Amino acid sequence: MKRIRDYGINIGTLPTGKRNEITDVEGVKVGHETISSGEVQTGVTAIIPANDNLFQNKLIAASHVFNGFGKTTGLVQLNELGTLETPILLTNTLSVGTCTTALVRYMLEQDETIGNTTGTVNPVVGECNDMVLNNIRSLQLSEEDAFKALQSAQEEVVEGSVGAGRGMKCFGLKGGIGTSSRKLTYEHGDYTFGILVLSNFGKLEEFRLNGKQVGMQLKDQFNSEIDETDKGSIMMIVATDLPVTSQQLKRIVKRTGNGLSRTGSFMGNGSGDVAIGYSTANRVPHSSSVTQMSVVHENDLDQAFQAVADATEEAILNSMVMAEAVTGRNEITLHSLSNYIEGII
Amino acid sequence: MKRIRDYGINIGTLPTGKRNEITDVEGVKVGHETISSGEVQTGVTAIIPANDNLFQNKLIAASHVFNGFGKTTGLVQLNELGTLETPILLTNTLSVGTCTTALVRYMLEQDETIGNTTGTVNPVVGECNDMVLNNIRSLQLSEEDAFKALQSAQEEVVEGSVGAGRGMKCFGLKGGIGTSSRKLTYEHGDYTFGILVLSNFGKLEEFRLNGKQVGMQLKDQFNSEIDETDKGSIMMIVATDLPVTSQQLKRIVKRTGNGLSRTGSFMGNGSGDVAIGYSTANRVPHSSSVTQMSVVHENDLDQAFQAVADATEEAILNSMVMAEAVTGRNEITLHSLSNYIEGII
Amino acid sequence: MKRIRDYGINIGTLPTGKRNEITDVEGVKVGHETISSGEVQTGVTAIIPANDNLFQNKLIAASHVFNGFGKTTGLVQLNELGTLETPILLTNTLSVGTCTTALVRYMLEQDETIGNTTGTVNPVVGECNDMVLNNIRSLQLSEEDAFKALQSAQEEVVEGSVGAGRGMKCFGLKGGIGTSSRKLTYEHGDYTFGILVLSNFGKLEEFRLNGKQVGMQLKDQFNSEIDETDKGSIMMIVATDLPVTSQQLKRIVKRTGNGLSRTGSFMGNGSGDVAIGYSTANRVPHSSSVTQMSVVHENDLDQAFQAVADATEEAILNSMVMAEAVTGRNEITLHSLSNYIEGII
Amino acid sequence: MKRIRDYGINIGTLPTGKRNEITDVEGVKVGHETISSGEVQTGVTAIIPANDNLFQNKLIAASHVFNGFGKTTGLVQLNELGTLETPILLTNTLSVGTCTTALVRYMLEQDETIGNTTGTVNPVVGECNDMVLNNIRSLQLSEEDAFKALQSAQEEVVEGSVGAGRGMKCFGLKGGIGTSSRKLTYEHGDYTFGILVLSNFGKLEEFRLNGKQVGMQLKDQFNSEIDETDKGSIMMIVATDLPVTSQQLKRIVKRTGNGLSRTGSFMGNGSGDVAIGYSTANRVPHSSSVTQMSVVHENDLDQAFQAVADATEEAILNSMVMAEAVTGRNEITLHSLSNYIEGII
Repeated sequence: MKRIRDYGINIGTLPTGKRNEITDVEGVKVGHETISSGEVQTGVTAIIPANDNLFQNKLIAASHVFNGFGKTTGLVQLNELGTLETPILLTNTLSVGTCTTALVRYMLEQDETIGNTTGTVNPVVGECNDMVLNNIRSLQLSEEDAFKALQSAQEEVVEGSVGAGRGMKCFGLKGGIGTSSRKLTYEHGDYTFGILVLSNFGKLEEFRLNGKQVGMQLKDQFNSEIDETDKGSIMMIVATDLPVTSQQLKRIVKRTGNGLSRTGSFMGNGSGDVAIGYSTANRVPHSSSVTQMSVVHENDLDQAFQAVADATEEAILNSMVMAEAVTGRNEITLHSLSNYIEGII
Repeated sequence: MKRIRDYGINIGTLPTGKRNEITDVEGVKVGHETISSGEVQTGVTAIIPANDNLFQNKLIAASHVFNGFGKTTGLVQLNELGTLETPILLTNTLSVGTCTTALVRYMLEQDETIGNTTGTVNPVVGECNDMVLNNIRSLQLSEEDAFKALQSAQEEVVEGSVGAGRGMKCFGLKGGIGTSSRKLTYEHGDYTFGILVLSNFGKLEEFRLNGKQVGMQLKDQFNSEIDETDKGSIMMIVATDLPVTSQQLKRIVKRTGNGLSRTGSFMGNGSGDVAIGYSTANRVPHSSSVTQMSVVHENDLDQAFQAVADATEEAILNSMVMAEAVTGRNEITLHSLSNYIEGII
Repeated sequence: MKRIRDYGINIGTLPTGKRNEITDVEGVKVGHETISSGEVQTGVTAIIPANDNLFQNKLIAASHVFNGFGKTTGLVQLNELGTLETPILLTNTLSVGTCTTALVRYMLEQDETIGNTTGTVNPVVGECNDMVLNNIRSLQLSEEDAFKALQSAQEEVVEGSVGAGRGMKCFGLKGGIGTSSRKLTYEHGDYTFGILVLSNFGKLEEFRLNGKQVGMQLKDQFNSEIDETDKGSIMMIVATDLPVTSQQLKRIVKRTGNGLSRTGSFMGNGSGDVAIGYSTANRVPHSSSVTQMSVVHENDLDQAFQAVADATEEAILNSMVMAEAVTGRNEITLHSLSNYIEGII
Repeated sequence: MKRIRDYGINIGTLPTGKRNEITDVEGVKVGHETISSGEVQTGVTAIIPANDNLFQNKLIAASHVFNGFGKTTGLVQLNELGTLETPILLTNTLSVGTCTTALVRYMLEQDETIGNTTGTVNPVVGECNDMVLNNIRSLQLSEEDAFKALQSAQEEVVEGSVGAGRGMKCFGLKGGIGTSSRKLTYEHGDYTFGILVLSNFGKLEEFRLNGKQVGMQLKDQFNSEIDETDKGSIMMIVATDLPVTSQQLKRIVKRTGNGLSRTGSFMGNGSGDVAIGYSTANRVPHSSSVTQMSVVHENDLDQAFQAVADATEEAILNSMVMAEAVTGRNEITLHSLSNYIEGII
């Protein structure tokens, strides 16, 4: 399958990173565990945000909830302290508890001090509701599945109907995992922004392909086949090596909403639209000490805002064109944008 | 001059109100006082949100700050109580204090109990920075100007380079006042959403006209004439008669950001992007009593979200095509989109 | 054991409810499952917030995070929608995932439509870190334990070292579960506020008993026995039948902080200080319709603020005097305030 | 008049700074302009937060609104950017506009680039409602008065019924300006926290003097003389030289609420309870560049939390005992705590 750029569609004017993936930010790895069996179409995706012991060397982090009809966990502490100390797992809505426990176990294995000589750990798990294709009530996902996703994490990101993206639906078509990146050039250095999305939102008729309102045209092709309730969600993960404070990072992750909006989302009532971001530039030690942080000027954020808005829009489009069709619960099939895109460009 | 629909550009699928103006919501009135004299190009715009004594019968209200590089006043109390008890004034950044005092005086005149037998009043004043065309340091705007805007409020909304919009710049072209509205139809009744914007944001190259990236094409026409720093802002006022709680209204006003994003804004660092909304449906009495509120279901909000996103996008486009060119400080002229639109549709 | 009023200590001037428990609010039930075996000293506490199907008839709800060094889950959606649709579970920090899954299963059993013909469900689970007494790394708590707590819920609240309170520490002494209530009388009716706390915070030297700084005096009795790191937390659950909006309720639940502060807490860095509240007065149907809500005037909130501040202070004191001494991990024993209180009143 | 320590009342265990005033933080200056004439009893207080050009070298800043029934201006931008670029003015509620304009003029005089070659400036003005003693409707305060307060700023802080504190009422007695400070000692250095409050809140019967509930006793002395509506407010200004991020500072300024709560406040509905803090340690240049920030570890914040809670409680008590009785509007006299304190210690 081809990515959106392979169709000649380039979002914005900033250059992409080498792979045009979130893993263009050094140290980032992504793994998937996919469960596909009849009416069970689901999975889990792991983002290893950086090399080395995250608990002992935390990452600057921030999040923003655009619409909170969602069950993401871990944001209370992430927002208070502005740090991330675990990998991020993405999964289906009702498997958040299982993934939370798996992530706790994973961290306990990594670090003997947690809950022993130091405090506890804050697992971060995001989700979307894949019940259109997946029998979500069956709670098939196991802690072992989450471990597999964590252990299979690699630099090359597989997109589409994989991992947590297996059962997802986007603008009435197949959604899932998508990624993109942007390079920033300042006088003081070059930096990278990477985005990974789990797309599961939108009404087909509202879909805008690079600004073009193609949704109605596509909808006509499907007649009334497509269910038009918007109970979806989107998780948007932002990685960067730009040296920022968590307050600056919060401003930056909010610009995922600009990219999301351009695809036609109005962030429906039933949608959990959540962005989580982190920077690998200034690590925060678990133990006490005064640290020196490099911090860019607020004026430098404009480029970052643009990078995040553009890369988010592109990552969503990638999640759609790279997603193969999947048939699941109630014999429903969600089709791939890749089948229709040639007719609407 | 023509509005954006007169060029055949229709945003979204929902029908507009009668005038396609914020005043389609019953009771809303808008007035302007414009100051245009050499390097002083500024003004004040008043939104009278509803009929009758607002202080004694407050409106359900909510606000959202997308990017807070701005000096809007009155939001602390509006957010805490979820009510609006005065008209809203819009002006240039450094005249917020003057308009605040003018609004206090206006309310003291309207209601003898304020600061006498009952508490004080919470004036709401928004702003954008019009320093490109206006000598903002000269602080020319007077309390009397604010009174004139309040007293001249009427149902017909004048758009473009008027009132607070006089000196504003949008996507490198002339910005200012724009408005639009949408009708919603539910089983339980028909309702209206109206938007008024004061547009003063954006980089020309990012401008998207109904999704089409026309910015680069326009920029080429201007060569390097256009200053490309984005220190702008946008104020977005949302009026409705839909019966909602302030929490629901907060969710609704956030969708102005979706419309704003679609025009090409990435909410620049130096931009004060602020939305304020109110509903005329459930009034909150100043004095104590248990009230009965009608409240729509959250599921009904999807239509409202769509209405607000679409009407905001349209109001911004109206603010641009309806704005006449203005020459101001440093002999700078900002041109009207109306001069160029035919070539880029 | 005796409650704090049995020592002649009455907090504030408002009358208590019949039991002086959270269950004085009609329909509320509380259950505990306690695990006590050597170095495993932990448990789970269930608050059934109201009678009947919570998912189909949601409760108005609100939360406030005073200090977010905590892992409470479910707040994203609770805050967005202002509703609660499940019981609330309290447990130890690392068992949040297990309790989340248990609560999902419990709700799936209660309602066949969830994840089938309607959307998913939002479980709410709070926690404190009981690692001083409990081998928290052993993850002993099971989903079955959570079910037992839910099934054993009753009107009579057992306080002290039970359920989630088993391993908790408060001001260097034994903490745990405490509760209290207050009656409000308005012209328009009588209402009740109930508080339940899970106390696990504070430095002994800062402890204030009804305003009296007794902490230093107590500390001297213990010599250097008491570990003085403050990595604790407190969960504060507020129940009422006062007819309020979720925005008003948010204002109300914030006043738990006033009661908490009076006991000597400065909300330490490592503390997860979280309040969650709900009202049983206006139910929100899961399905669409316009509802009529009764809403008290903001002026009526002062009494509610006072009730919540006072009942929180009293619930914390109850959690301490009602907690029996427990010996757990590393042979550490935490002593009961009841052993020392006579000497410091 | 004597300060609260002169009565033998010491709040908490941390040492105070040299003066036990906010000006113990180097560079801080405070000035007052008091208007006292018959039924006009009001004024303005200026806090010069640090030496040198604040606009070109901004201060790290944060704020927290405990209860937002208030009209403080400037918080939108202060919260977004986490910086302070002007002095802070405190005044009566209806003079916020006048002080805003005065502060704009003051900054325009200080810096020619504002609104000319660079953007605008964000004035910060706080307020309380002094209408019990002051004819607040008469809007007597002028921009010149604000300038006088700014120009008279000095290291020695005058407390009590001066400046903005002239007409304020606290727990039914005379309130006004109070201050206190604390010294922190870490391995990496010594730091200072200073607090200045403008106190105008509370019901007499709730007043707690160092934890002791003396309110009812005091109330009996006054019979029914004291009006018991709580429409007050408190502004709490926190200054420090501890090197923190704005996110850390936000956590710190929230602990003013702990000190406030201990005095008996339940943050009444009609109260605007607002804290604004800043650090002089890491300056943020107005122009672009990457800066190096020193940042303390989160674990170090516990001492800061304690310092702020304790100093706030003491500053409030100072504002009361140092306030002379004032007679104002409607011939109402508010009495000084200093007249009654000996009988209730």
